[in-house]
Amino acid sequence: MLAQLKKEVFEANLALPKHHLVTFTWGNVSAIDREKNLVVIKPSGVDYDVMTENDMVVVDLFTGNIVEGNKKPSSDTPTHLELYRQFPHIGGIVHTHSRHATIWAQAGLDIIEVGTTHGDYFYGTIPCTRQMTTKEIKGNYELETGKVIVETFLSRGIEPDNIPAVLVHSHGPFAWGKDANNAVHNAVVLEEVAYMNLFSQQLNPYLSPMQKDLLDKHYLRKHGQNAYYGQ
Amino acid sequence: MLAQLKKEVFEANLALPKHHLVTFTWGNVSAIDREKNLVVIKPSGVDYDVMTENDMVVVDLFTGNIVEGNKKPSSDTPTHLELYRQFPHIGGIVHTHSRHATIWAQAGLDIIEVGTTHGDYFYGTIPCTRQMTTKEIKGNYELETGKVIVETFLSRGIEPDNIPAVLVHSHGPFAWGKDANNAVHNAVVLEEVAYMNLFSQQLNPYLSPMQKDLLDKHYLRKHGQNAYYGQ
Amino acid sequence: MLAQLKKEVFEANLALPKHHLVTFTWGNVSAIDREKNLVVIKPSGVDYDVMTENDMVVVDLFTGNIVEGNKKPSSDTPTHLELYRQFPHIGGIVHTHSRHATIWAQAGLDIIEVGTTHGDYFYGTIPCTRQMTTKEIKGNYELETGKVIVETFLSRGIEPDNIPAVLVHSHGPFAWGKDANNAVHNAVVLEEVAYMNLFSQQLNPYLSPMQKDLLDKHYLRKHGQNAYYGQ
Amino acid sequence: MLAQLKKEVFEANLALPKHHLVTFTWGNVSAIDREKNLVVIKPSGVDYDVMTENDMVVVDLFTGNIVEGNKKPSSDTPTHLELYRQFPHIGGIVHTHSRHATIWAQAGLDIIEVGTTHGDYFYGTIPCTRQMTTKEIKGNYELETGKVIVETFLSRGIEPDNIPAVLVHSHGPFAWGKDANNAVHNAVVLEEVAYMNLFSQQLNPYLSPMQKDLLDKHYLRKHGQNAYYGQ
Repeated sequence: MLAQLKKEVFEANLALPKHHLVTFTWGNVSAIDREKNLVVIKPSGVDYDVMTENDMVVVDLFTGNIVEGNKKPSSDTPTHLELYRQFPHIGGIVHTHSRHATIWAQAGLDIIEVGTTHGDYFYGTIPCTRQMTTKEIKGNYELETGKVIVETFLSRGIEPDNIPAVLVHSHGPFAWGKDANNAVHNAVVLEEVAYMNLFSQQLNPYLSPMQKDLLDKHYLRKHGQNAYYGQ
Repeated sequence: MLAQLKKEVFEANLALPKHHLVTFTWGNVSAIDREKNLVVIKPSGVDYDVMTENDMVVVDLFTGNIVEGNKKPSSDTPTHLELYRQFPHIGGIVHTHSRHATIWAQAGLDIIEVGTTHGDYFYGTIPCTRQMTTKEIKGNYELETGKVIVETFLSRGIEPDNIPAVLVHSHGPFAWGKDANNAVHNAVVLEEVAYMNLFSQQLNPYLSPMQKDLLDKHYLRKHGQNAYYGQ
Repeated sequence: MLAQLKKEVFEANLALPKHHLVTFTWGNVSAIDREKNLVVIKPSGVDYDVMTENDMVVVDLFTGNIVEGNKKPSSDTPTHLELYRQFPHIGGIVHTHSRHATIWAQAGLDIIEVGTTHGDYFYGTIPCTRQMTTKEIKGNYELETGKVIVETFLSRGIEPDNIPAVLVHSHGPFAWGKDANNAVHNAVVLEEVAYMNLFSQQLNPYLSPMQKDLLDKHYLRKHGQNAYYGQ
Repeated sequence: MLAQLKKEVFEANLALPKHHLVTFTWGNVSAIDREKNLVVIKPSGVDYDVMTENDMVVVDLFTGNIVEGNKKPSSDTPTHLELYRQFPHIGGIVHTHSRHATIWAQAGLDIIEVGTTHGDYFYGTIPCTRQMTTKEIKGNYELETGKVIVETFLSRGIEPDNIPAVLVHSHGPFAWGKDANNAVHNAVVLEEVAYMNLFSQQLNPYLSPMQKDLLDKHYLRKHGQNAYYGQ
């Protein structure tokens, strides 16, 4: 079942080491079939070079139960499911420990928009979540991680379709998109922006966000009704 | 038409990922036929690994109209054209978001000459433009970007033939040269210098420009009438 | 003798350049046969690309005498042996001068736990040893290096099974694990963590250790009786 | 003539891009035949991928005249020759603009010994020269560069056999060794040390030189009469 989606998720997972976003097995990609409410996700702790399409696991969006697959799904599955349930337009999710996004997550800091590379993909600041509480950590940790991400977007009035990534405090990034491949694309951009903003801020410690007009121009020339970038 | 120029522009575009100057499609190279006043440029948003020579687009230097080609030209085309119109000796232009040049552009800072690697190619400070105004951003943005670059060189008395690159504030670098290949060469050097100067300045925060005599020596042994570098 | 162990040690040594942990011959891996009290280790100063399985040297755990092999063992052999004698559960050891772990060792600083990448593998702060005394340096230096490592763990109450790496002051890292391959794995993680924590601390100079609850959660979901990560 | 030496110099030049020490043609290696007082050096500004053994140029140690070769020798030849004349034990010289050594040269700072990677190859601080005078720059610049290097070693009492590298102020590194291959080896180590010491000093701005005893131990276990590293 879901052969095409499994293929996309498998290939998106393989794209992670290709883009130097993961070391060992530290990353996972999923995608959702919105009609069937089923999510395809990478198995837990399987090496990228032995993984096959058939190792992808199919889980139910609401119960998290395994619908198909011989392997355990990624331990981060409950985080993915919560994001799919609360962010209704997203089709794929990526989690990595990519170096520079993780550096910002470990520092507990948002990535402020200071350049058009950022503005081409993220329509404002990429938020870092608050620290999780003891209760959340000791409870259903991976589900609570998803809930803290959702809380971050709701409480700060951030639209997940416009800012397709988050930094989980003391942990690392999640990125999403319209499908698995697009989520990986956004994860690559996030890493690039995280690298550049780190050193821009070192060169100019008083750096403030770029002009709102410039952000509008760049985001909207690539996204939305009047986009004119690309073919 | 312009088969040789298309080939040069195509190959120069492929050189960008080879030199690690671009991620995805974030870069473009053009070149000009000065006799015909026609510019060949990369199409907008096409992946480097599927692009062919025939995808290159030919546009008119003055009107920007497509003279030949099935695809839309790079969205940055009006910036390229303005530079060709105002800088009459240049034959090729490159735009990238290469990491370290972009770091300086995001910080809004010039790259001061502090070493002979810089002096071998750039005869003084590589300028960063001022921020663009709301009117410029909301108007013909890409054309205005070119105008702000030209203003930077004119108002600061910088000769574009001697400083073949600029940082566009909050955006990234443009570099140019006598042809497409030479423009890419200068973009590579810019990135190298941007990397090194970032950390030289961190090691020695009070770094001032190198001696004018040393700059003269290095620039002029590679450029101008008495050059003696190379075969 | 010990053909399987030699193969494992040989392959683990080759994994060092593959993971970009060593330049030239600056690294060595060993493993122990706990039943026979014999240690297999890389020969001293042999290039990775000419080394063969048969170049691995077998030495006695207690005397350090060569039991088999035509080559001199790594000059760091006495350090390895001391660690095997004092840390009874470890099966493999790696020494490298990997860039970022060495940066911390040269700075003489512990690597504090500030993220879950760290917590997934190291159950707390990765210690840096004290400086060695003149007597230790001028005596049996490599053996004394091992003793200072052991002292660091004992005096600070750190359990080597939970923190499988150390930074030797002004020198570089040692990492270990249940076997040679696992030791290399931990050396890779150490390098990754060393890179990320360097820049997290630059972004946020007042960074304190991550929450103990979060450290517990991550370390224990991968290690110990209730681990649920992987297949 | 000097077929074997040409081969060694050619291969050592090719090793520069392999070790990521040069961009484009920014580097050169030479070697000397001490009996004939002839030096073999890379031609000026020739791409590494079209260069052949026969492009190597043979010049006279004392006059600098071309003894054999169809191409112009590297523009840095007079610097090499001065070092061979004044440092009588060295057999090969490398000049690069390798990123991190150049970062220190541009900052005008010595690289202080803070770790055993440094101590394994350099028996103390790697000096940065003073700035050159206007007269030196406008005179026989490349020869004067060599003279300033020699002055640095003489005036500071540094033995070039023990510290086989220097940083030329506002320029970049020269390294040397017993032959061309060994000089490249030392250039690689210099770059590695330059990278690590940059960030060790950022982590710990008050870093002082490592203990003299530890430096002795590491340098002398690899060099000199009682060396015991390697086979």
